Amino acid sequence: MASNLSFVLNKPNDVTFEERPVPKLQSPHDVLVAVNYTGICGSDVHYWQHGAIGHFVVKDPMVLGHESAGTVVEVGAAVTTLRPGDRVALEPGYPCRRCANCLAGRYNLCPDMVFAATPPIDGTLTGFWVAPADFCYRLPDGVSLQEGALIEPLAVAVHIVRQARVQPGQSVVVMGAGPVGLLCAAVARAFGASKVVSVDIVQSKLDFARSFAATHTYLSQRVPAEENARRIVAEAELGAGADAVIDASGAEPSIQASLHVVKVGGTYVQGGMGKADINFPIMALCLKEVTARGSFRYGSGDYKLAIELVATGKIDVKRLINGVVAFKDAEEAFKKVKEGQVIKILIAGPNEKVDQSS
Amino acid sequence: MASNLSFVLNKPNDVTFEERPVPKLQSPHDVLVAVNYTGICGSDVHYWQHGAIGHFVVKDPMVLGHESAGTVVEVGAAVTTLRPGDRVALEPGYPCRRCANCLAGRYNLCPDMVFAATPPIDGTLTGFWVAPADFCYRLPDGVSLQEGALIEPLAVAVHIVRQARVQPGQSVVVMGAGPVGLLCAAVARAFGASKVVSVDIVQSKLDFARSFAATHTYLSQRVPAEENARRIVAEAELGAGADAVIDASGAEPSIQASLHVVKVGGTYVQGGMGKADINFPIMALCLKEVTARGSFRYGSGDYKLAIELVATGKIDVKRLINGVVAFKDAEEAFKKVKEGQVIKILIAGPNEKVDQSS
Amino acid sequence: MASNLSFVLNKPNDVTFEERPVPKLQSPHDVLVAVNYTGICGSDVHYWQHGAIGHFVVKDPMVLGHESAGTVVEVGAAVTTLRPGDRVALEPGYPCRRCANCLAGRYNLCPDMVFAATPPIDGTLTGFWVAPADFCYRLPDGVSLQEGALIEPLAVAVHIVRQARVQPGQSVVVMGAGPVGLLCAAVARAFGASKVVSVDIVQSKLDFARSFAATHTYLSQRVPAEENARRIVAEAELGAGADAVIDASGAEPSIQASLHVVKVGGTYVQGGMGKADINFPIMALCLKEVTARGSFRYGSGDYKLAIELVATGKIDVKRLINGVVAFKDAEEAFKKVKEGQVIKILIAGPNEKVDQSS
Amino acid sequence: MASNLSFVLNKPNDVTFEERPVPKLQSPHDVLVAVNYTGICGSDVHYWQHGAIGHFVVKDPMVLGHESAGTVVEVGAAVTTLRPGDRVALEPGYPCRRCANCLAGRYNLCPDMVFAATPPIDGTLTGFWVAPADFCYRLPDGVSLQEGALIEPLAVAVHIVRQARVQPGQSVVVMGAGPVGLLCAAVARAFGASKVVSVDIVQSKLDFARSFAATHTYLSQRVPAEENARRIVAEAELGAGADAVIDASGAEPSIQASLHVVKVGGTYVQGGMGKADINFPIMALCLKEVTARGSFRYGSGDYKLAIELVATGKIDVKRLINGVVAFKDAEEAFKKVKEGQVIKILIAGPNEKVDQSS
Repeated sequence: MASNLSFVLNKPNDVTFEERPVPKLQSPHDVLVAVNYTGICGSDVHYWQHGAIGHFVVKDPMVLGHESAGTVVEVGAAVTTLRPGDRVALEPGYPCRRCANCLAGRYNLCPDMVFAATPPIDGTLTGFWVAPADFCYRLPDGVSLQEGALIEPLAVAVHIVRQARVQPGQSVVVMGAGPVGLLCAAVARAFGASKVVSVDIVQSKLDFARSFAATHTYLSQRVPAEENARRIVAEAELGAGADAVIDASGAEPSIQASLHVVKVGGTYVQGGMGKADINFPIMALCLKEVTARGSFRYGSGDYKLAIELVATGKIDVKRLINGVVAFKDAEEAFKKVKEGQVIKILIAGPNEKVDQSS
Repeated sequence: MASNLSFVLNKPNDVTFEERPVPKLQSPHDVLVAVNYTGICGSDVHYWQHGAIGHFVVKDPMVLGHESAGTVVEVGAAVTTLRPGDRVALEPGYPCRRCANCLAGRYNLCPDMVFAATPPIDGTLTGFWVAPADFCYRLPDGVSLQEGALIEPLAVAVHIVRQARVQPGQSVVVMGAGPVGLLCAAVARAFGASKVVSVDIVQSKLDFARSFAATHTYLSQRVPAEENARRIVAEAELGAGADAVIDASGAEPSIQASLHVVKVGGTYVQGGMGKADINFPIMALCLKEVTARGSFRYGSGDYKLAIELVATGKIDVKRLINGVVAFKDAEEAFKKVKEGQVIKILIAGPNEKVDQSS
Repeated sequence: MASNLSFVLNKPNDVTFEERPVPKLQSPHDVLVAVNYTGICGSDVHYWQHGAIGHFVVKDPMVLGHESAGTVVEVGAAVTTLRPGDRVALEPGYPCRRCANCLAGRYNLCPDMVFAATPPIDGTLTGFWVAPADFCYRLPDGVSLQEGALIEPLAVAVHIVRQARVQPGQSVVVMGAGPVGLLCAAVARAFGASKVVSVDIVQSKLDFARSFAATHTYLSQRVPAEENARRIVAEAELGAGADAVIDASGAEPSIQASLHVVKVGGTYVQGGMGKADINFPIMALCLKEVTARGSFRYGSGDYKLAIELVATGKIDVKRLINGVVAFKDAEEAFKKVKEGQVIKILIAGPNEKVDQSS
Repeated sequence: MASNLSFVLNKPNDVTFEERPVPKLQSPHDVLVAVNYTGICGSDVHYWQHGAIGHFVVKDPMVLGHESAGTVVEVGAAVTTLRPGDRVALEPGYPCRRCANCLAGRYNLCPDMVFAATPPIDGTLTGFWVAPADFCYRLPDGVSLQEGALIEPLAVAVHIVRQARVQPGQSVVVMGAGPVGLLCAAVARAFGASKVVSVDIVQSKLDFARSFAATHTYLSQRVPAEENARRIVAEAELGAGADAVIDASGAEPSIQASLHVVKVGGTYVQGGMGKADINFPIMALCLKEVTARGSFRYGSGDYKLAIELVATGKIDVKRLINGVVAFKDAEEAFKKVKEGQVIKILIAGPNEKVDQSS
């Protein structure tokens, strides 16, 4: 069998390539997948730079990566839904299936979740990956493997927009125009939102957002959050405020503005990660009877819908891909993401030929 | 007709009694009610002391009071549900019935709400009160007029507990053991909560809470919010955390602890008012996928259910009443509430005889 | 002022034109609207033919029509949202605003609803119409008055699809390809449904449905309902069944097939009217844990969303209009609808010039 | 180890006792349970009499029984929640944990469910039973093993009442006063329903219902369903109708009456099984915008809440137990249930001593 070269983080800023044994199926419900493409997430970069995110600390060498698509090479005896050769998007977190949250259909909240590239679990920047078949989603004919690697961040956005209960005809403000913010804007449009306002502090990101999904944009100013909120409402003609607000930035001023821009009785979802504690307009939440929800990863049906949105042409994730690099150039790709030069850059699997024109 | 003496706030700490004209029906849907008893709300005391709450400023003399029960004395031509002599609890806020929120069944969020004792609208510490018949709720035989004056704060608690979507068998933590916190605890029990933990900084309040509704109590300590949360979970054996947390205190440390004590996937409702902006554990909300909701006054069905809970004996609101004073002693009653000597004290209407033994 | 000629049903098959007095505002919240165009509903035709629908019996002469758009000519003193000259879609039913259903945001279920052309209330096939301003919806610049007359049936479809809780990516089967069925299919697409299967017994209707909104069609056969259901699932590749099924036909075999075509855990909505009692597969509902809902007229937000769907180009209601006739030719229009020659035909208001090319 | 004597249905009316091998753990997540008590369900009796229920046909000998409580005797290596000696209620159906319904938290709708005493799966009228630990619920100290055997039917009732979304203060009509109907009435009370009307055709059942849980009873008459509905509304003073109606009878006239007794906008749940197709008032569902739901077995959280309701004393299931028989007398017990002499009779496990006084 081909190479199982893996991209390993030893400690902050110290990565190496290691040839590891090809993993074996652990259950008759598992499949073995050759990884074709992997995108880089902000969390990957953060581990690479800092070796930890909150309580999650990289103590032993860990393979990075969790936004992948691949090709099935072997299926377990109990697998009926996939065959070798099937191209799949990989959902990279595996819940226990037995706790109260799993049985209640909220498996993303499973306390025993095993999640790729979250210490101490190895990630998908490797040659071969074993996963339960029901967490591998076949890509329809019209969806490429490179698009397949974008399904993970798109599923994040689908989950956020679902948490916001976005309904047709609504107005939605999305704070942040990074990959997740862009995808939230696109999903909100696909859910029928009439107005989608992208907000960021970088004009070029807003320009892309406007061309990609947003009906309106707003360049955030160094003014009090209430004033930014007031201007968003005025410029996008939101009347009594936005029906739903999604913070995909994690930035304190954006979160504050979210609570001020949402209408009385509206919904705000915290989708981006940032400081643990911030100054927060709690009375706005109380008096406007806002519903606020957190959003964590993705759950039941999110991958399926993400693929559907790509397959039906409602969201063109290809436009987010700025390039594809060979596996040996993985660290270069991390640097580009860190420097903010790209929206998404894909790393080809170690057995994948890279056509630089793709 | 009898006296329409009214208790008027002129400016902070300056109240007078005025004989005002008995009001007239303004619509065939209105009724005229003789006010029998009125409770005092923290907001009444706040206006009395400070002349303002947030944006609401008392500029002209305003009658105080909005927690009242009374007796119907006249009904408009279109009224079919009430007759003179009916004893009623008064819902004191009247929405426009025509805006998007009113038509959507969320009339408490009506931007044109006319609410008693919220400037510049006069309140119910007066002899007679005109209201639309559908905002006057007949008290069943077994419910007294004094209990009727407690329906307003009980409706506040019903609304909060509904916002928390409390289900049978759940565990609920209630921050604050003032009147609203006590009533939230009692409503949560009536909704079938298995565990209700009252939290406060005053042991005597907790003792009352335990005898009134709470299954557990916790005396909040001067430790970090996460530590208070940890201790609540341990002492009340909440396992992975509380299913629902209600903050009825408005206090910053309590709100912080709320986010730490709620379980992954749980619900937190902000029911108490305090500082506009606080330090808030936003990542706890995000990563635990908490649903947070504000709660503002009361809406569709809340008064009806509040009366039902009293009529069926599920909540004994009489236990919250520490005394009844004559109308002429209204300012004394305000002082007692301000000094924290009482849970609830009622002011009899100006035409009401007070039996001091009641 | 211009003519208030009205199209009056005296008794079954007996209609006359009467010049009636122009109505006057009854409240400061009312507006007076000159009616420009009115569509014909199946219920209008049924009253015209039979003089009754269920318990509703035409005892005295009644003006027909309730699918109208018009132009504001006068506004009451309290009206702030409309001005003379505004073009509006007319929501033709006025609830009491005071009952439990109204206050709970379900005003379509108001027992005291006053609904146009439902005996004994006169309808909108007249020159001028008085309505509360909040039930007159301004048409945006890009939406014509003729399209405005289609907002009523579109709002019926919006309500039905909302009752079905259609979500992006779902599969929806719509029984019946008459005006409401066609619009349900279009709304389901606008809500993000991936597959929409129109079912009818007339191939030409299915051909139109396919060109208008459906992704799949099925010509219902004279076979048992379970067999029709089986074929729909097979032909449209619905796997375990449809996520949602809407019956817009009222026909017994269609309703039976609805319960068999819906997936385990799916949703079925009864939107069409037919026989009061039918043979119904109740155990399918029980064992598959289906959620079934009725749908009655339209309620909070339905008109607003219907207009939005037309304004944003998501639904092209113009394609349903087969012609416009002058007011004097109203009976001819009724005959054409009765004979099934048209999808929708509009009757111009009595003061409207008819451009036959429109 | 002790006897694993099993009560086996060979074909209709032909049962035998067989000593079978004690089963072994099949997964490290399994536990082995000694069965202490088992109740008899109507479905057990139906298989015994007819050898089939719908598509489920007993082709090979099958052990009967699925309402059991037992004592843990062995735990798998991965089990952390149970220990030998723990007394548990057994949830008797095991879903695949991998299909869309399982992952969405609706495991009762799993198409690959393995359910005790549903052909070809053996049931729990046996000495020892192997089950995944998460489907064995520890009984608190105050709950006996005999009560534990009633948790299964109580979980059925909990699921039904949850499907009805019963809220505090509501009125609920329950059609049928058999074991499930009685338990639905009790659960509805525990959920805070103010009025619970039990309806049956046998007065003695209603008398028990009144003493057990119902606030009102109605003896169904041989009159049209609408007339029975009218009388229920009148006698129980339900005003505009019941907020929720539960059919726990499966009888055609009861289902018809359910649709007529439910209020406009109310909820009806089909919980009982009967004829596959019935004459059904479909226009009542449509015009009243009723929400109808099926209810099938039980799912996430239902067992946990059922135990909680017993443990907290809210439902006294002991009152439903008319007797306990030794394992060797199992067929006698089936006869008594068939003849309608009892509400619930328990069969002791083959290793259990029977104290006839219990």
